[in-house]
Amino acid sequence: MNAEKIPDIIIGRLPVYLRALQRMADRGMKTTSSQELGDNVGISAAQIRKDISQFGEFGKQGTGYSIPFLMDKLRAILKVDRIWDVVLVGAGDMGHALARYQGFANRGFNIVMVFDNDPEKIGEKIEPFTVEDSAKIVEKVRAAGIKMAMLTVPAASAQDVAEKLVQAGVKCILNYAPIHLVVPEGVRVQHIDPAIHLQRMTFYL
Amino acid sequence: MNAEKIPDIIIGRLPVYLRALQRMADRGMKTTSSQELGDNVGISAAQIRKDISQFGEFGKQGTGYSIPFLMDKLRAILKVDRIWDVVLVGAGDMGHALARYQGFANRGFNIVMVFDNDPEKIGEKIEPFTVEDSAKIVEKVRAAGIKMAMLTVPAASAQDVAEKLVQAGVKCILNYAPIHLVVPEGVRVQHIDPAIHLQRMTFYL
Repeated sequence: MNAEKIPDIIIGRLPVYLRALQRMADRGMKTTSSQELGDNVGISAAQIRKDISQFGEFGKQGTGYSIPFLMDKLRAILKVDRIWDVVLVGAGDMGHALARYQGFANRGFNIVMVFDNDPEKIGEKIEPFTVEDSAKIVEKVRAAGIKMAMLTVPAASAQDVAEKLVQAGVKCILNYAPIHLVVPEGVRVQHIDPAIHLQRMTFYL
Repeated sequence: MNAEKIPDIIIGRLPVYLRALQRMADRGMKTTSSQELGDNVGISAAQIRKDISQFGEFGKQGTGYSIPFLMDKLRAILKVDRIWDVVLVGAGDMGHALARYQGFANRGFNIVMVFDNDPEKIGEKIEPFTVEDSAKIVEKVRAAGIKMAMLTVPAASAQDVAEKLVQAGVKCILNYAPIHLVVPEGVRVQHIDPAIHLQRMTFYL
């Protein structure tokens, strides 16, 4: 497998498959078919077979996919067969919600530090974290070797914080600030902006 | 313009252009070029010109785009030249963060009701809202004629709530629950799941 050759749109579907397989496993299922998996994610069986076959022959004609086996393979491909430390910058409402979110650990991620630049927030407890001073981001994130960040700061400061994170060695940023971040090659950003998602739907109303 | 004929991927970029134009306008800018707009959103100038030209001739050769004019056009195309009432279901951490989020109103959306099925949350104040009983979703949402919803309930109850919302007349659901929702034709769903976005990036590490 050559990561360079797999279209990013396929990579983007693999976590969706993995999530659906996890739900099947939680319900005690051991095997599934591309048809059944497709029904669970709203993607055609043919597309699923094609996507998965980019990485190897993981299913058997007639019996379909072993759920634990396919989950192991997808976790390895996505590199979430390990736990990634994540730094969270921005201890506002959204930062609080993410710091307390229970859905990261079993999907490969663990928030380990929370920063904010507001003197009123620095030192605040968001169990199990204590909010640290953003001025220390570069030093602390670099020392901890953290590669992943979530950004929940206001739009006006997001680019500055992103640059600090990149300087500290962060390679992946999940950006909740409503602004496009400019980052060097080799750093990836994914954007979450609920108003963008809503506007994309109103077009069709 | 025939909405059926415009690829959804283009529709998905228009809100990003609109957001960038808003930031330019906030900085006092009056005109821009496809090159400059592209630099602000990480999309090529050629792609931007092609996307926008699907809807008409909004720019002038040599002078580029009038920012207020293009914003008006994009808002009309995306139907956010008005304010859409939105119902929020799920008053947990993420629901609280969204209920308090200040970034919706100037982008076309206004949360008007918050529901939860937890007796401890029903009646809770999340200014300016009082959390209402989910049992009343169908009745109240239908009476108010609300077409848009945000869903921040646990995965196990998301499909049930989505069905209630559809029954009440909702046509667009922004789903924060980590599960794929199955909805009838004519109803649109957008999914936000931070773990999915993070997993999409770890592949490249």
